[in-house]
Amino acid sequence: MTIGFLPQLFSANRRGPCALPHLLCQKMNTTSSKIRVDLDQSTGVAVMWMQSPPVNSLNMDLLTEFNTTLKNLEMDKSCRGVIITSSLPRIFSAGLDILEMYQTSPEHCGQFWKAVQELWLKLYGSNLATIAAINGSSPAGGCLISIACDYRIMADNPRYSIGLNETLLGIVAPYWFKDTMANTVGHRTTEMALGLGLLYSAPEALNIGLVDKLVSEDQVVNTATHTMGKWLAIDEHARQVTKSMMRKPTIDKLLSNREADIHNFVSFITKDSVQRSLGMYLKMLKNRKG
Amino acid sequence: MTIGFLPQLFSANRRGPCALPHLLCQKMNTTSSKIRVDLDQSTGVAVMWMQSPPVNSLNMDLLTEFNTTLKNLEMDKSCRGVIITSSLPRIFSAGLDILEMYQTSPEHCGQFWKAVQELWLKLYGSNLATIAAINGSSPAGGCLISIACDYRIMADNPRYSIGLNETLLGIVAPYWFKDTMANTVGHRTTEMALGLGLLYSAPEALNIGLVDKLVSEDQVVNTATHTMGKWLAIDEHARQVTKSMMRKPTIDKLLSNREADIHNFVSFITKDSVQRSLGMYLKMLKNRKG
Amino acid sequence: MTIGFLPQLFSANRRGPCALPHLLCQKMNTTSSKIRVDLDQSTGVAVMWMQSPPVNSLNMDLLTEFNTTLKNLEMDKSCRGVIITSSLPRIFSAGLDILEMYQTSPEHCGQFWKAVQELWLKLYGSNLATIAAINGSSPAGGCLISIACDYRIMADNPRYSIGLNETLLGIVAPYWFKDTMANTVGHRTTEMALGLGLLYSAPEALNIGLVDKLVSEDQVVNTATHTMGKWLAIDEHARQVTKSMMRKPTIDKLLSNREADIHNFVSFITKDSVQRSLGMYLKMLKNRKG
Repeated sequence: MTIGFLPQLFSANRRGPCALPHLLCQKMNTTSSKIRVDLDQSTGVAVMWMQSPPVNSLNMDLLTEFNTTLKNLEMDKSCRGVIITSSLPRIFSAGLDILEMYQTSPEHCGQFWKAVQELWLKLYGSNLATIAAINGSSPAGGCLISIACDYRIMADNPRYSIGLNETLLGIVAPYWFKDTMANTVGHRTTEMALGLGLLYSAPEALNIGLVDKLVSEDQVVNTATHTMGKWLAIDEHARQVTKSMMRKPTIDKLLSNREADIHNFVSFITKDSVQRSLGMYLKMLKNRKG
Repeated sequence: MTIGFLPQLFSANRRGPCALPHLLCQKMNTTSSKIRVDLDQSTGVAVMWMQSPPVNSLNMDLLTEFNTTLKNLEMDKSCRGVIITSSLPRIFSAGLDILEMYQTSPEHCGQFWKAVQELWLKLYGSNLATIAAINGSSPAGGCLISIACDYRIMADNPRYSIGLNETLLGIVAPYWFKDTMANTVGHRTTEMALGLGLLYSAPEALNIGLVDKLVSEDQVVNTATHTMGKWLAIDEHARQVTKSMMRKPTIDKLLSNREADIHNFVSFITKDSVQRSLGMYLKMLKNRKG
Repeated sequence: MTIGFLPQLFSANRRGPCALPHLLCQKMNTTSSKIRVDLDQSTGVAVMWMQSPPVNSLNMDLLTEFNTTLKNLEMDKSCRGVIITSSLPRIFSAGLDILEMYQTSPEHCGQFWKAVQELWLKLYGSNLATIAAINGSSPAGGCLISIACDYRIMADNPRYSIGLNETLLGIVAPYWFKDTMANTVGHRTTEMALGLGLLYSAPEALNIGLVDKLVSEDQVVNTATHTMGKWLAIDEHARQVTKSMMRKPTIDKLLSNREADIHNFVSFITKDSVQRSLGMYLKMLKNRKG
């Protein structure tokens, strides 16, 4: 169950008992990987496929594996660019897993939030060229991953949506989510989007600049691979210094304030009123599926 | 007589001696209210109707009543959102009243400016959801009120205009007017708009994002009421925290610098050259009406 | 040879041995002026024609003359606005002269960079109204001159391009180039443009707001002169204070950090790897022309 979970996404697609069942409220504890990595040594391009059914919820396991994978690719001399995508149908990532912050200990919430920070810090500041191949809906944390990349290609399907819709759940996107979005679509669009918890359809997202390009669903990863060639054609050092110049001030705001940000998150999320909001949201989801 | 006063607005609409008479150069000293408030207890939505003929000039009386009204609504538990509009034809508000700063004492100028600051601080930082229902022209201070709201709906009439046109009078919009506009339409559009004192027609204003929606004139307030429903559907606390996150840095710039800003304004506006500019402007208006 | 040098610009236009010959790799040491100034005393509008064949490379001589010319116009009471344009066909300015930073001493690089800073500081902060009449391609430093003006009019020719394409040469636009561009087209467009070293065709530049208006090639300077009238119609003091309010924070960032910025530039540009990149670029140009 994730912040950006979209009930309607599934209500229209339920094909039987296996569609998005029990897994939703229990963590998978298999040793199987939640991320598959395909690294093409000839081009230096890695594809990170998120494959954590049913909706690539960003729980502790997926976050940890995401961060480790990215760190390893960053240190791998043969890798120069990474494409982030989903191997699941209709969903890129549904965002942070609510179960990590609902009726869990403050300590757990703090560790969880630190992992979310880590993902953003590493991805937004990555020396690799990064492209989000958004082949499904991408609310909340899914949107964060997308806007932390250098470029966004989305499936041209109006039923897929993207946005920071945290307020719909009674919670608040932190300032560094906000900064990343404002760096992408500007202050005013961000203010309205966050205030109303707006999710934009793929065409709307293109229109406001939240994504850079729409292509047909089966061409998202191919197009990302092709586009990556343009980024890798640029001198590596010049590209990295330029990227750092653009993003360092935003990153430094969190780096200099990381513990306080964790503290704020834990204080907020463990409030009775917020826990009630999350509980009601979870109940609503269960009822919908009941 | 107001900063944003638009002679052409009236030259085309003069219907007789009562159209915009003597009041223009004298302050009304009646006990009648300059703002009517309709609060719908069932929805929690208040409508503030500015009703200070002829053009809702922001003089000391209207500013004071505006600030008191907003403060009272803010403390009223039954009120969750406020719509700001005009009960006068063809004008939302023509902006700051020049007579408050022409040939008045520095002390008076300072008190006047403090009231303008107060309006902006309270409105831009309001915990209420705020919508400007711009049913007429909205230059200068009228534009400031509009862009300090959460959302702007304007009458779809190309003869109505909106903008920060201070330089046309030889005066300068202060940095917090500028910041509010830049937060709405971005740095470049703001730079050109302020430099040239541009007033945008309603369609142009929509095009640059200075307003969010155009509807027919008789539907402005209705649409605002309907739109307010979307804002009030969002969890109150989450909406307020998100809004504060977006606006607090801009508000804090003035809060930490309020006395200096008053001092700057008084120094500037009492300059001989600026007083001459204002005097010429007033004379020009009188001649037009003569 | 300049940062933004466009081989294709000339490959299609080579008319004989005189097209862009030996001058390219040697500095002109004539006493003839590299900038012609036409000042219309009746309007207060000066036109600065850059006339340094073949491509108005910003070498030490042109920079120095540019800065002196602007300084003199700034102090000339009869001058209120300046239009910057090129007297050469097909090129506005091709940007910084690579030969000033390739295999030259650190001292020379430092002096060169100081002159580039000076140009930007004086132009971006000019009290004059400034319009770029971009009658040809305008890469790199040519783009910087353009975006440092108050307004940009470009020839409506899709073969002319404009942009900060430094990364294409393995070098990096400094933060104040970046800030000026972000102030013009916003953070996201700047991030992508700088990261990929994008050059925008005139229609594309209009579309993203990098220029403000396109007119036919023979009307660029005329239109600039006409447009200047609108800027000069604004009260001088109000216009200047407003402009300063918009630009001072960006200018102050460099002013408070000027020596460090020179040091950074010299350290970067004298790196072996960067010198190699520049050398390869120069060789590539020679081969193309060979």
